[in-house]
Amino acid sequence: MEKFLKEINGETWLIEDERDNMKLHYRIKEVISSKKSPFQQVNIIDSHDFGRCLVLDGVIQTTELDGYIYNEMISHIPAVTHENPKKVLVIGGGDCGVVNELIKYSGLESIDMVEIDRVVVEECIEHLPAISGNASKDKRVNFVFDDGIKFVNSKNKYYDIAIVDSSDPIGPAEVLFSEDFYISLKNSLKDDGIMVCQSQSPIFHKEVLKKTHNTLKKHFPVVRTYKAVVPSYPGGMWSFTLASSEYDPIKADIQKLVTDTKYINREIFKSCFNLPNFMKEDLEIV
Amino acid sequence: MEKFLKEINGETWLIEDERDNMKLHYRIKEVISSKKSPFQQVNIIDSHDFGRCLVLDGVIQTTELDGYIYNEMISHIPAVTHENPKKVLVIGGGDCGVVNELIKYSGLESIDMVEIDRVVVEECIEHLPAISGNASKDKRVNFVFDDGIKFVNSKNKYYDIAIVDSSDPIGPAEVLFSEDFYISLKNSLKDDGIMVCQSQSPIFHKEVLKKTHNTLKKHFPVVRTYKAVVPSYPGGMWSFTLASSEYDPIKADIQKLVTDTKYINREIFKSCFNLPNFMKEDLEIV
Repeated sequence: MEKFLKEINGETWLIEDERDNMKLHYRIKEVISSKKSPFQQVNIIDSHDFGRCLVLDGVIQTTELDGYIYNEMISHIPAVTHENPKKVLVIGGGDCGVVNELIKYSGLESIDMVEIDRVVVEECIEHLPAISGNASKDKRVNFVFDDGIKFVNSKNKYYDIAIVDSSDPIGPAEVLFSEDFYISLKNSLKDDGIMVCQSQSPIFHKEVLKKTHNTLKKHFPVVRTYKAVVPSYPGGMWSFTLASSEYDPIKADIQKLVTDTKYINREIFKSCFNLPNFMKEDLEIV
Repeated sequence: MEKFLKEINGETWLIEDERDNMKLHYRIKEVISSKKSPFQQVNIIDSHDFGRCLVLDGVIQTTELDGYIYNEMISHIPAVTHENPKKVLVIGGGDCGVVNELIKYSGLESIDMVEIDRVVVEECIEHLPAISGNASKDKRVNFVFDDGIKFVNSKNKYYDIAIVDSSDPIGPAEVLFSEDFYISLKNSLKDDGIMVCQSQSPIFHKEVLKKTHNTLKKHFPVVRTYKAVVPSYPGGMWSFTLASSEYDPIKADIQKLVTDTKYINREIFKSCFNLPNFMKEDLEIV
């Protein structure tokens, strides 16, 4: 058994040990699968409170209970904000949940999903259908199992939308929060392209959010931070930052938003840009 | 040492053991105080991630890090929605955070705070000033250490606003979620009075939220459920339900909202009533 799984009184618990000041123990129904990839330990587990979860190196990445909130918010906002998107790039997002949202837009012609770990994608397609959905069946989706940075550097003025669905900025994903990467990403976009990234918790990672917002401000005239809840994560609230040279989500035609969603709707689209006072202060938005 | 506190490798941890499927361990800097009241074990602890916390029988109730979000949302919404409130009742709310928000409204003439456990109030005034603030210094505030239900039954057409700041509907607080209590509360209100209660997590306590909403619908023409984040609570999102015979928060004059707040502002006031699709479906709001 993996070291993050523990038997206590005949029950199996997943012990998340990554935080210094908080440890979370989740009661597990079943370990659905366990694979060692060249990059990490990949598990799909079934938990009592959150349903099936993708677990990488012992840390829950996404859950059946609430994964759709994050996935809908990072994908529908740019898809609706761009006037006529055709080509989309997704960096990371191995659970395929973001791609499964994007394919709801019939106008999109191609979605390149660049994920370094093929095993994550294969496991999520097989064991997490509630999240990966039809991502692997749509002919517009092109899976690239490669390094995201290398891939982005090979593209020039190509994409309408780039979505960075990264893990936390510790270890391998750290570079996905760097200024150099944002510059590469901008170069991979057409002149009216839009990029979106997850910018961490406004409560626990204020510095990441501020840095992301301020760095993107240097390179894009339109930068909008927006919020959503992420129930499975302590800190509850999550932030996303959108940057664009042309389109402003505040002025988007929200009639284009598809309706087969569980979290986002037109009112949520409009109101996610309304930030609490403490976030405005942190971001120096007056 | 209390049984929910544990020394591990020279560090002190608070172990929240109340949930069946999830256990949370918080690293503690210091136990500030420990009192046994006639009702419960009352601790103020200082934690690494959440600052000082009120802990009742080993369960965190409110924290310096994010207590203001809950307190602002349950108090400013009714205070602004009512056209001209004078008399306010707060049931529970021993941390005094709700009262500390209410006193920001100079038009209020009296605030009766009915809390069964005097020790909680005393401890929070002494050791949690970031939350209790000036609640105990304002002459309009009247502390009543008594049973909330008994107190409410003694009042008739008296209050403009009643706020139920209860703990979870298990054990002693369960009755605060009953139809009989809502009827008593309605009777304690003037004809144009407003009541608000916390209605639990829309993710983990869907049944409580639905029942609260539907029960209040039977007795009040205006019922509005609204949302906020509660970072220290797994489930992230929290719900409140407002009920009124006359005033609708959607039509409130939000210019009246005070500005010395950390979470709520005019945009948050307006957008907190915009619910995600899954909540609309749960509440059968079309």
